[in-house]
Formats: sequence, C-alpha cells, structure tokens
Amino acid sequence: MFEILYQSKKSAARVGKIFTPHGVIDTPNFVAVGTNGTIKALDNATVSEIGLQLMFCNTYHLLLQPGTKVIKEAGGLHNFIHRQLPIITDSGGFQVFSLAYGSVSNELKGRGNKQSRNLVMKIGEEGVLFRSYRDGSKVLLTPESSIEAQKDLGADIIIPFDELPPYHIKNDALKASLARTHRWEKRSLDTHLKNRNGQAIYAVIHGGIDLDLRKISCDTLTKLDFDGFAIGGSMGKNKQEMHAILEHTLPLLPKEKPNHLLGIGDLESIDMGIALGIDTFDSSYPMRTARHGLALSWKGPIRLTRASNANAFRPIDENCSCPTCQHFSLAYIHHLFKAKELSALSLASIHNLHFMVEYMADIREKIAADLI
Amino acid sequence: MFEILYQSKKSAARVGKIFTPHGVIDTPNFVAVGTNGTIKALDNATVSEIGLQLMFCNTYHLLLQPGTKVIKEAGGLHNFIHRQLPIITDSGGFQVFSLAYGSVSNELKGRGNKQSRNLVMKIGEEGVLFRSYRDGSKVLLTPESSIEAQKDLGADIIIPFDELPPYHIKNDALKASLARTHRWEKRSLDTHLKNRNGQAIYAVIHGGIDLDLRKISCDTLTKLDFDGFAIGGSMGKNKQEMHAILEHTLPLLPKEKPNHLLGIGDLESIDMGIALGIDTFDSSYPMRTARHGLALSWKGPIRLTRASNANAFRPIDENCSCPTCQHFSLAYIHHLFKAKELSALSLASIHNLHFMVEYMADIREKIAADLI
Repeated sequence: MFEILYQSKKSAARVGKIFTPHGVIDTPNFVAVGTNGTIKALDNATVSEIGLQLMFCNTYHLLLQPGTKVIKEAGGLHNFIHRQLPIITDSGGFQVFSLAYGSVSNELKGRGNKQSRNLVMKIGEEGVLFRSYRDGSKVLLTPESSIEAQKDLGADIIIPFDELPPYHIKNDALKASLARTHRWEKRSLDTHLKNRNGQAIYAVIHGGIDLDLRKISCDTLTKLDFDGFAIGGSMGKNKQEMHAILEHTLPLLPKEKPNHLLGIGDLESIDMGIALGIDTFDSSYPMRTARHGLALSWKGPIRLTRASNANAFRPIDENCSCPTCQHFSLAYIHHLFKAKELSALSLASIHNLHFMVEYMADIREKIAADLI
Repeated sequence: MFEILYQSKKSAARVGKIFTPHGVIDTPNFVAVGTNGTIKALDNATVSEIGLQLMFCNTYHLLLQPGTKVIKEAGGLHNFIHRQLPIITDSGGFQVFSLAYGSVSNELKGRGNKQSRNLVMKIGEEGVLFRSYRDGSKVLLTPESSIEAQKDLGADIIIPFDELPPYHIKNDALKASLARTHRWEKRSLDTHLKNRNGQAIYAVIHGGIDLDLRKISCDTLTKLDFDGFAIGGSMGKNKQEMHAILEHTLPLLPKEKPNHLLGIGDLESIDMGIALGIDTFDSSYPMRTARHGLALSWKGPIRLTRASNANAFRPIDENCSCPTCQHFSLAYIHHLFKAKELSALSLASIHNLHFMVEYMADIREKIAADLI
C-alpha cells in the first residue's frame, strides 16, 4: 500500500504514495482533522475541491453522535459525509483517556479537566467504561469494540486501541501502561485481521519521553502485521524533546512502511518531522488558527484582525490560488471577522487548508530535489 | 428601470424586470439580507451561484463597521464584498430608531431594549445623533448623511432616511412623525438628485396602521421623483392587519413603478403581498430559520434536528437541485446540527436560499399563467 518514490540524499525525508481504496495520498502530506465528519466551517465538497487527500475523523465523537450504526446504515463514513477521498479514523483511546487524565497540553499548562473525569467509570484490562457526554448512557470501549466501530465507519486507515498516559507519570506506571497498550494493540490487530475490509491499520508507538520504552514499543509492534506506524503518546513539553524522541524512534521503524505523527501539524513540527522520516501529520492547528483569525502564508502567519488590514484591498496572499484569495480581499475578511460573521471563519479556513495542501506539495518537490 | 412583462388577470400580481447597473432583477423576487455585506454563513461567490438577484445590505451596520469610507476606497460595496449582482441598501433609519424605541416585534412581544436606547442621544428635525456601539464615537445620521453614505456604498437601489415610529403611538405623534419623515424623504431625494450616480431611490411609505395616513403618505411621496416605493413602518400585529394595510395602500401607488415590502419575507406574507402587487420582499427570515435548523420545502418546513431525521439517508428534498441536496443527506445535516458544527449552518442556509430563489421563479410562472 506504500510506495517510496524518492529517498532524499540529505535527510530521512522521502516522497511516496499511499494507496487506499479511495485513492492515493501523496506523501509527505497534511491530514486535516474533521472530528465529527466535517472539517470545521467547511463542507466536504469544498474540502475535496481544495485537494485535501486524507481526512482524520474521530471514532470517539462519531460513536456518541450519530453512532456508528447510523453511519454503517448509511453505507459507511465516506457515503455518510459525502467524501470520495481517503479517510483515517482513530481508536477513540486518545479522547477517552483525555477525559480520564486530562489532555497532555492541558496538563502541561496546569489546566484541569475535573468535570469530564467523572465521565470515565472504569479503566481495566478489558478496556474503558465511560458515560456518553451526550445522553449519559454507558459505553464500553475495548480494543475489539473500537475496531468494530472502525469497521462500521469503514475508513481507509484505522488505528488500534491504546492508552494515552499522562505526561507526569512514574516510570513503573508508564511501563505498565505501555505493556497493556501493546496487549490492546495486538487484540485490535487480531480483530482487524478477521475482517480486513480493505482497510489498513497503523500501530501506535508509545513510550512517552522514555527512549528505552520507545525502543521496546517499536520492537514489539514492528513484529506484528501492521501496515504503518503512528507515533503517539507524550512527545515531551517542547520541540527539543519531540526532536529527540522522533530522532530516536523513526530509525527503529521499517523504512518500507508509512509513518504518521499523531495530532501534531504546526509548520515547525512538520518541517522537523519530515526530515526525520514522518510521512503524514494530522492536526487541527491550521484550521483552528484560521477560525481564530490567523491566516497562514509563505511569509509567516497574518493576523487577519489587525487594524492595519482594514483597508488592505489585496488578497491575503497575492500569489495564492485558493477560492478565498481569488475572490475576496484581506480588508473584507478583516471586516467579516470584526462583524463576527460566520463567513469569516469559512473563508479563512479555506485559505489555511489550501495553504497546507500547497505547503506539503512544495515539501515533496524540495525532497525530490534533495533540499530537505 | 422597471418593465412589467405580464399583469395577472386574477390579481394585482405582475411579472416584471427591474434593470440596474449590475443586472436584471426578475420580479416578483426575494431579497436576502446580508446586513454586514455577507449573507450569514455563506460567502458571496456561493450566493451568486445560487442565483440570488438582489441582496439587501444595512447602511447602519456598514457605517459603523467597516465604515463607508473604507468601502468607498475599495471601489464601492460591490467590489468590497465581491458581488457582481444588484444590491439594495437601506438608510440606517430603521436600525437607529429600533435602538431608540425598540423594534416593533420586540415591542409587541413586550421585550425591552433598554440598554441600547441609551445609545441614541438626540432625535430632532436635523436627524438622529447616536453613539456607535462599536467604539462609542458620536454619529449624526441625517437624510443628507444617509444618502451620502449610500452614495459611498454605491448600491443599485437606495432608500431615503425615515423614522420608524413605535407600534403603540398616539395618533398625533404618528402624524407628526409622518410629516417629518416626508420632509426627511424629500431632503434625501434632493441629495440623491444632485448626484444620481446610476442609483435608483425608492420612497418609503409610512403611516403605520392608520389607513388615512397611509393615503397621505402615498399622495405626498408619489408626487416626488422616486423610482419605486417601499412599504415601511408598522404593518400591524398580525397578517390580517398587514393585509388591510397593503390592500389599501398598493392601489394608491403608480402601477408602472416597482413596489417593495420592507423586512417581511415569510412564505405566507410573500403569497399575500404578491397578489396585492408587491414586487420584492427582503427578509432575514429564511436564512435565520436555516441557522435554527428549519429547512424550507415545497411540502412545508422540515425540522432538521428532529430525531426521526437521524437516519434519513435522503436529501432534505428529493427534487431539490441545490448543492446541499445534491451532495448531502438529511441524516448527515441532522448529525452536523447535533454536533454543533458550523457547516450545518452553511448547508442549511444554502438550501433555504436556493429554495427562496426557486419559490419566486415558481411564483412568476404562476402569475404568467393567471394562477395568482
């Protein structure tokens, strides 16, 4: 399913293609997050026109609303959300453990998550029992039920059920968590292999900031029949820690399989990850940043709401071919943000998504020229 | 500027064309409200594709954000908001008097408007002095300044400055308000005639629910060089009162000029108004209703968020040719509303705007067949 077209002479970066039942993903590539089956503020017809090749949907959210049964009944997620291009789903583990422990970023910022913790009722070898935030019903998420949910969704690429341990965790607890995650990933894989359904499955490499555990995770999971590898768990509290983890981990993974970096996709991290051999990055960052009034550009981010943009009767970027820049001025978008119009969010989102598509195409060209 | 193509043999309804510098408006037609230079949740490229022929923008809002100077500098409102098709602007009177007296609908519902009343500092023969809700600066809106603002905006059709008296007003006060409104409309017209700028100007017929005053308003304003007539002021507290006012007023207006009904555009009122000779209707109703999860259809409104729509894997309307119905199922849109996704608002808005365009085209056909 993965073909490497070019291996950079300068770094571990490579240009490749991932083949899926819904088409090809050119790598390296950016994977936009459409948690509920939609990229926020955009419709999926627009998203496909912009050229997003892989969309990331969250099983946890779709499980609770509208439920995977509804989506299965609709003929799968592609049909349900009207997307003809590839989709990847996660296992729900990340969200359910964020409920239990709080997200790592909140933890590092000292922000609590008390209210939602009450939703998690039990964590055990079997899996996690929690209450739906929507209707209060009890949901048991296990490796088997997560994979079955992902079978109902029918994404092109799926992810095994794993535990997301907190950043501040004692080494023994992290070791125990890792061992259970490996057992869960094996159970996920076994469930998957009973009915491949044309889907690929990526293992999730854990171990947090402990490089020895990262090695154990790679050694354990590369022995199994996974189609690719996603780097998950805590990536440390800054870019240096992340670099150290990726630099250590990626050489431990088989070169012929695709590597995904989970939940990280700011431009600096993308640049770093690509040189170390990451092929795909999912992140809500570029789209969230658009909704907050920040447009990405080749000359750096542009604060759309800056007073000086009130009469900037030029596009966000003169050279940008996105529908927003083709039709609308920076001054108009500035005005829409100031007037709190919803169209501001859509127009900025279109621009940032298009930018990410172009940014990754440019990266592929640079790798092919040994510039990365 | 107005050509009647067909006069119904059954009613006062007529099919016509309004010619403007930015193209033709087929009448009767619906005029969507884009207060801040955007239909809420849609971008103007999409709006034009859907076929909306006339868009209503609010001078009051644009005056305060981004300011008419910015828009003039951008080359006018069409350029600024990227709309090649016709635009109508109002005078700002409606909004500024809603601030002063509260809106008629809030008044009828017993809802107060106390906080915003403080923004109006003085109402006199000259005009209205109020504070900007944006930056606290003082703004003097007069017949002359309103028309000058509308010249800067450069809409195809403009509206003279008028007073919106409250619904509960004593007859003497209403008479005095009407007389001043007529003086203001004359001053507006005089300002306009100094520099027509290719724009048309519609008088606003006032008189509230007093039929004698409505007649005085028609007699006074039809003597002046207005290009069309907008029915404004209080239209009563129910459809019966509105019917009585329109039935009385419209025969008093010259047949060869277009008639607009200000701020009313639900389907029932449209049907009623057309048979009495109204040519255009502006209203935020169909778009607001979309954002509230109600889709318009030929079989009546559809509550998108109804539980039974959770697995309705058909379009909102099987026969609808709008982009929403072409691509997305009712079940998916139901899900997007439940998940509080912004794309729900856009998709429903696209459908309702398209519906209004189709509804009015159907009405024109029915008139041409003497069915209305």
